[in-house]
Amino acid sequence: MRLRLTPRDDSYYEMFADSANNLVIGARLLAELIGDGGDRDAIGEKMRACEHAGDERTHAIMRRLNGRSATPFDREDIYKLASSLDDVMDAMDAAVDLIGLYRLERLPKGIIDQVEVLERAAELTAEAMPRLRTMKDLARYWIEINQLENQADQIYRRLLAHLFDGGYDALTVMKLKDVVEELEAAADAFEHVANTVETIAVKKS
Amino acid sequence: MRLRLTPRDDSYYEMFADSANNLVIGARLLAELIGDGGDRDAIGEKMRACEHAGDERTHAIMRRLNGRSATPFDREDIYKLASSLDDVMDAMDAAVDLIGLYRLERLPKGIIDQVEVLERAAELTAEAMPRLRTMKDLARYWIEINQLENQADQIYRRLLAHLFDGGYDALTVMKLKDVVEELEAAADAFEHVANTVETIAVKKS
Amino acid sequence: MRLRLTPRDDSYYEMFADSANNLVIGARLLAELIGDGGDRDAIGEKMRACEHAGDERTHAIMRRLNGRSATPFDREDIYKLASSLDDVMDAMDAAVDLIGLYRLERLPKGIIDQVEVLERAAELTAEAMPRLRTMKDLARYWIEINQLENQADQIYRRLLAHLFDGGYDALTVMKLKDVVEELEAAADAFEHVANTVETIAVKKS
Repeated sequence: MRLRLTPRDDSYYEMFADSANNLVIGARLLAELIGDGGDRDAIGEKMRACEHAGDERTHAIMRRLNGRSATPFDREDIYKLASSLDDVMDAMDAAVDLIGLYRLERLPKGIIDQVEVLERAAELTAEAMPRLRTMKDLARYWIEINQLENQADQIYRRLLAHLFDGGYDALTVMKLKDVVEELEAAADAFEHVANTVETIAVKKS
Repeated sequence: MRLRLTPRDDSYYEMFADSANNLVIGARLLAELIGDGGDRDAIGEKMRACEHAGDERTHAIMRRLNGRSATPFDREDIYKLASSLDDVMDAMDAAVDLIGLYRLERLPKGIIDQVEVLERAAELTAEAMPRLRTMKDLARYWIEINQLENQADQIYRRLLAHLFDGGYDALTVMKLKDVVEELEAAADAFEHVANTVETIAVKKS
Repeated sequence: MRLRLTPRDDSYYEMFADSANNLVIGARLLAELIGDGGDRDAIGEKMRACEHAGDERTHAIMRRLNGRSATPFDREDIYKLASSLDDVMDAMDAAVDLIGLYRLERLPKGIIDQVEVLERAAELTAEAMPRLRTMKDLARYWIEINQLENQADQIYRRLLAHLFDGGYDALTVMKLKDVVEELEAAADAFEHVANTVETIAVKKS
């Protein structure tokens, strides 16, 4: 039998893993929406449910954090990790929302590339969160996320140039730019998650 | 006779109440501006004075916070509360400023709805700040602010859709979108104020 | 012989000075780019190198901060100072990047004024950083930066009005507005640097 000396702290790991798993679901819904053009309303509703579930998880982490019981990492790092995971979801949800709100039918190919990067980043993040418990094997996670973010940046810049290349009227450019910027914000937020994991790992080392 | 053991801390409550009362004034100026079309220049000047007064209050709170005397709540929460109150004022001031700068004459009806929500949020916030002293009766405040923020979100989304609905040329859409986004930022900042109050209350409970 | 009792902390001063000197280089590259129209590709490449150098410095500061050795100021203030210096560089780099990406040939005169303010702010900041060691003569630095930021705000607002004054088509307005907003963000970040220096000085006094 293994004695748990700090049973209450353990659940932080589970809450972070949960939050990240929820991002995998969100990223897949996003891919579905911009992919073969499934039922947009149904996907939009699932995304909203996904975002609410994410909110619940974030609040649960914050509540526990305010409860002042012992924490496995510095409180400020737990706060940052939870906030950044939440930021990813908010940005992906906003992108889905805007695509519906603006009734965007034809999306430029580059947006599919953006979303593929987000899907991969979500999977890597979900795989990494449980490793916070042992602190093993995390470096390759944050290195890969940084590479993905660089890739996302390239795609984003190409998309911006493409939007202004004369193929779209000004109002359409404004709409697409809003969507593209939310997706870029999601990629940035994945990097913030990885940076915080790196900070936590460095402090523990 | 009641002895005050920590007399210097008390003024935090007054400074926060002061800051929030200033937001009520700002929200009313905003309502006046977009309402019956009073003297725009005069209102703009009053708004600037209001924003400066808010800045003074924020700096006073920060100065006291840096002074390292005892604080009634966690320093980081005082910092967040003061910053978020300041963010509300900055966003409302920016909206007024842009309306003047862009010489926007005809504003869509939805903007009036946005500002009504801000007025109500400012009043609720100003009523709640003095209750930080006793920590009583704060839950209904943050619940109502969260409801107002949801309402603000709905209005904001409807406005965005309306702006792109074909009734405006691209340059006007850009101008109105800037204003509408500042007002949405003000509503978000009111929610941050309420979230920080909730954090403070949870820690004290 | 002078004994150094806290030899490890000293390098924070050097790292901050280094970071600020790097901003002087960045601001000059920006001025060169929008000035007489030198070789844009070459300047863009130098700017990217400058931004990478800035990133290295920021990471070095963060690594040391996470190492938990004693710090000359509050950790949170060191964090804020390093982040704000980094924000300045990111915004200036983004402006250069967008000018290239959008192939903007003709830039409005106001942008030159914006960049002149940034150059001056960078020089003042680079001169001030070494004075963190003695804490002497810092007030006039943050006062001057605040004045410069006010000036930057005026220029920014005039530029916005100019962009919408009918001389540009909607797509060009969108492009120029993105550039102008990055330059305004750089001026704001210089003010955040100065505010943090003020906080540090107040705490030490």
